[in-house]
Amino acid sequence: MSNVSAATGVPMPPMKFNLWGTVDESKPLGSSTRKLLTKLMGVNTDTGVAAKDVEVSQIRLSPVRLSDEQLAELAAIVGTDHLTTDDAQRAPRARGKSSLDLLEWRTDAEISAPDAVVAPSTDAEVLTLLQYCTAHNIAVVPFGGGTSVVAGLTPFAEDAGHSFDAVISLDLARFDTLTDVDPVSGLATFGAGLSGPAAELKLAEHGLQIGHYPQSFPYATIGGYAVTRSSGQNSAGYGRFDDMVREMTLVTPVGIITVGHASPASAAGPDLRELVKGSEGAFGVVTAVRLRVHPVPQVKRYEAFTFPDFATGVAAVRAVTQTGTGPTVIRLSDEIESSVNLSSGDKAGETSAPPGCMCITMYEGTPEHAASRHKETRELLLVHGATSVGEDPARHWEQGRFNAPVLRDSLLDAGALCETLETATDWANVPRLKKAVGEALAASLNASGTMALIMCHVSHVYAEGCSLYFTVVAAQQGDPVAQWRKAKTAVTTALTLNGGTVTHHHAVGNDHRPFMEAEIGELGVSVLQAVKKHFDPAGIMNPGTLIGAS
Amino acid sequence: MSNVSAATGVPMPPMKFNLWGTVDESKPLGSSTRKLLTKLMGVNTDTGVAAKDVEVSQIRLSPVRLSDEQLAELAAIVGTDHLTTDDAQRAPRARGKSSLDLLEWRTDAEISAPDAVVAPSTDAEVLTLLQYCTAHNIAVVPFGGGTSVVAGLTPFAEDAGHSFDAVISLDLARFDTLTDVDPVSGLATFGAGLSGPAAELKLAEHGLQIGHYPQSFPYATIGGYAVTRSSGQNSAGYGRFDDMVREMTLVTPVGIITVGHASPASAAGPDLRELVKGSEGAFGVVTAVRLRVHPVPQVKRYEAFTFPDFATGVAAVRAVTQTGTGPTVIRLSDEIESSVNLSSGDKAGETSAPPGCMCITMYEGTPEHAASRHKETRELLLVHGATSVGEDPARHWEQGRFNAPVLRDSLLDAGALCETLETATDWANVPRLKKAVGEALAASLNASGTMALIMCHVSHVYAEGCSLYFTVVAAQQGDPVAQWRKAKTAVTTALTLNGGTVTHHHAVGNDHRPFMEAEIGELGVSVLQAVKKHFDPAGIMNPGTLIGAS
Repeated sequence: MSNVSAATGVPMPPMKFNLWGTVDESKPLGSSTRKLLTKLMGVNTDTGVAAKDVEVSQIRLSPVRLSDEQLAELAAIVGTDHLTTDDAQRAPRARGKSSLDLLEWRTDAEISAPDAVVAPSTDAEVLTLLQYCTAHNIAVVPFGGGTSVVAGLTPFAEDAGHSFDAVISLDLARFDTLTDVDPVSGLATFGAGLSGPAAELKLAEHGLQIGHYPQSFPYATIGGYAVTRSSGQNSAGYGRFDDMVREMTLVTPVGIITVGHASPASAAGPDLRELVKGSEGAFGVVTAVRLRVHPVPQVKRYEAFTFPDFATGVAAVRAVTQTGTGPTVIRLSDEIESSVNLSSGDKAGETSAPPGCMCITMYEGTPEHAASRHKETRELLLVHGATSVGEDPARHWEQGRFNAPVLRDSLLDAGALCETLETATDWANVPRLKKAVGEALAASLNASGTMALIMCHVSHVYAEGCSLYFTVVAAQQGDPVAQWRKAKTAVTTALTLNGGTVTHHHAVGNDHRPFMEAEIGELGVSVLQAVKKHFDPAGIMNPGTLIGAS
Repeated sequence: MSNVSAATGVPMPPMKFNLWGTVDESKPLGSSTRKLLTKLMGVNTDTGVAAKDVEVSQIRLSPVRLSDEQLAELAAIVGTDHLTTDDAQRAPRARGKSSLDLLEWRTDAEISAPDAVVAPSTDAEVLTLLQYCTAHNIAVVPFGGGTSVVAGLTPFAEDAGHSFDAVISLDLARFDTLTDVDPVSGLATFGAGLSGPAAELKLAEHGLQIGHYPQSFPYATIGGYAVTRSSGQNSAGYGRFDDMVREMTLVTPVGIITVGHASPASAAGPDLRELVKGSEGAFGVVTAVRLRVHPVPQVKRYEAFTFPDFATGVAAVRAVTQTGTGPTVIRLSDEIESSVNLSSGDKAGETSAPPGCMCITMYEGTPEHAASRHKETRELLLVHGATSVGEDPARHWEQGRFNAPVLRDSLLDAGALCETLETATDWANVPRLKKAVGEALAASLNASGTMALIMCHVSHVYAEGCSLYFTVVAAQQGDPVAQWRKAKTAVTTALTLNGGTVTHHHAVGNDHRPFMEAEIGELGVSVLQAVKKHFDPAGIMNPGTLIGAS
């Protein structure tokens, strides 16, 4: 199969295929981090090839399985410039950014990659593509920012006993408009392919903001946030991404549907938006999202606190949330995370912050509103055992808020295993769940021959509970992919048995799919299969993700 | 068909079959109301029989279509005491409480009624009932408080080209427990048949509250709120009922599903709770609901304000909501509603309140929190053109908050037509929608030969918009059922063309079903039909409601 002539109209994804981020962003490990890894885990940090130096040409990708005729027919739909089979474009769309994905690039196995990349620009083109693929047994994986950490992007060519002849990557990048800005009501419509920063840049021209800042913010897209139920660091103030979504346009193989009502809320039956949120590309392609937006805050206020222990901090954060004092950001790190202070990257091992559990708070809005929320929140935190440590730790956190994932590449280079996992539960169950997760992780990793550094924080709060986000660092032992899969299975089982959800905001992908029956029950899985069958009768949409076709 | 021997184990619904509420609650019209009706609309208020004086024995109900064998088989499932075919039990479950329902009782037509009433007490009994009815072509209408105002309870024996041999009413009243109270997290599980007041009474023993107060509160049930997406008067503070629902148990003809996760929020796929909320009994029977609850507030603060006109008031309410100053209740009546002050019942025509648009606010919580919210809210309202009129109008409103529907019975007795309708839209669209609704109502009712008194208020607020609730009073002309159907069709069409949802909180029932394709699109209707087909293959669940079976 010859390559289609090099397309110029397929945007190159910004992240390097085998890294989080770009080569320029990569951070070598600081000496104190190296010392910590060697001392605590016996990791030999002077190892071989850094991933940032590996080129696509050194990787073996699966051969292209589309015929010249099929390639020409696909090119006829989107335009010749907007289709490519170049390896340099296939590679960055072959995997997401889980540690297992990053480790896979470091092996010398052949990597399955989408057979072609198409970049449509209209709903009509997407519909025609999906109809074509349905007729020709070609699977379709929608691609936004490529930041999935749950194997939501892997181009599976088999699922539920069915084989596809090929898999294409459908890149949303050309859906990049901002339209229908309603500053009075606080609404705006975004092309699904806009990255978070690009969306905020356009919206800022109107004095408005979305305010959704997950760690993937520099790269992830509006459409991706919507279909994975993302949650950002300002969720205390502005809600999860699900709370921000007012309408979506979903192009399915059987037709186009706009979900949402001409009003903020409705009693006109079940809420179809909630079928599309969390659908992870398995029902169709989200091409546009109408979001609730708000004025760019006039002021930001900062204050950090420490608590003597995690339980005291959790009780205080619960009081703040249940009273409704209204911070925009509230985060609580456990003792280990606070002392490691890993989020400052190369400062691991040094503590510039006081001992105890660090609690970061921020307050945004009008001067009066931010001051009012700050005053009420701080008073309640102080009553519940907090000690103020001033603004600096909170400002410092804000500056480094997107840095952590980059560090992971250097840790992997150095022979350390590093991954995150996240869950949520009710306040009363937080101690039990935290303990169960920690124990399951430690037991599995210890059994593999390494000690494990397990850090935990609360960063998303609800009236009845909160999220728990764990960062794990250990030494790679044997085959690190097998090592982590074992630990992941053990910990996910433990958390489902201890009142946790299998994912609070990372989504299901393929990694969490085996746990869906435990999470939502047999009838839950079968009704989702019925919905998928309705929208995607041939099961072409993102096979391997969320739930199997029925 | 002989009656089964009179069952003692089927609770009698508290509302009289042809009234809102009980006979004791009925309120004759005050003289000023009579004068207003006569003067403005030429209504002759000295008319015949009052509905409260009509007995079931004077009504012709449809004959019972179940055979003795079928009745015995049904009785075997729930116990002989928990099945009845007495007319005194069939009548109150034959209709809801829309004005069309209440008018229908006043005709001498035969009224279609459920052939039998069953009152199960366990999920297993409900499942067996639904499986039996599936096998025997018997439709099932779940019954909670009987307060539907959109024909959600009418026992249709035909739908989507299919005829059922009989229809039974499945009363939830025996699902009346409070279990699994978690005061730390703020969660509790309720039997779906508990009325609002009964649920609050049980929960108050734990110092906790739900805080959901729609006008139907004295009678409607937890399960009913959940499946209709109800919204209450304290929604500004505690959210709609949808926001309060954490989990639900749904018994369908094909099995039992618990929707919801073991956590406050999850990214594990689509949110199946949102398929059940708004399902209006068309997918199965909700038997239990786990709700977010909060401590009974320590204090309540009150303040009422007036605005010179509705637009100024709306802008102020928008500022409060978008800033997030946090009142528990905020309501704004338009000029006509403020002057009529209909909510005080017999004071119509007298104004004890100052001119302009009345705005009621309340603040609940801890003393500090309530004071903080009150201060921030009032300061913003005053900046936006409010004049304080002190506590009294707000306290007065609170005392009469559930009274209005009772007045309607006396108005209907007097020959007046009285009904409500409600919608919601974005802030920027409020003037256009209010105007379109008012004009459509006035045009249709004027054409029927009467002037119309049209009152409007905002009572549910969102960052991007609000609800609009209309109360209409006119003189009955000719056949009032035909007169209202015509007006209802005209106004619902107008609001769908002017950016409104067909229902903000009254639900779809049968009345709004013709508008579902306009509301959610063809693919939206068909995917809901696919879901219904999955849960209810024979289409026995509440035919005629929400969407047709496919």
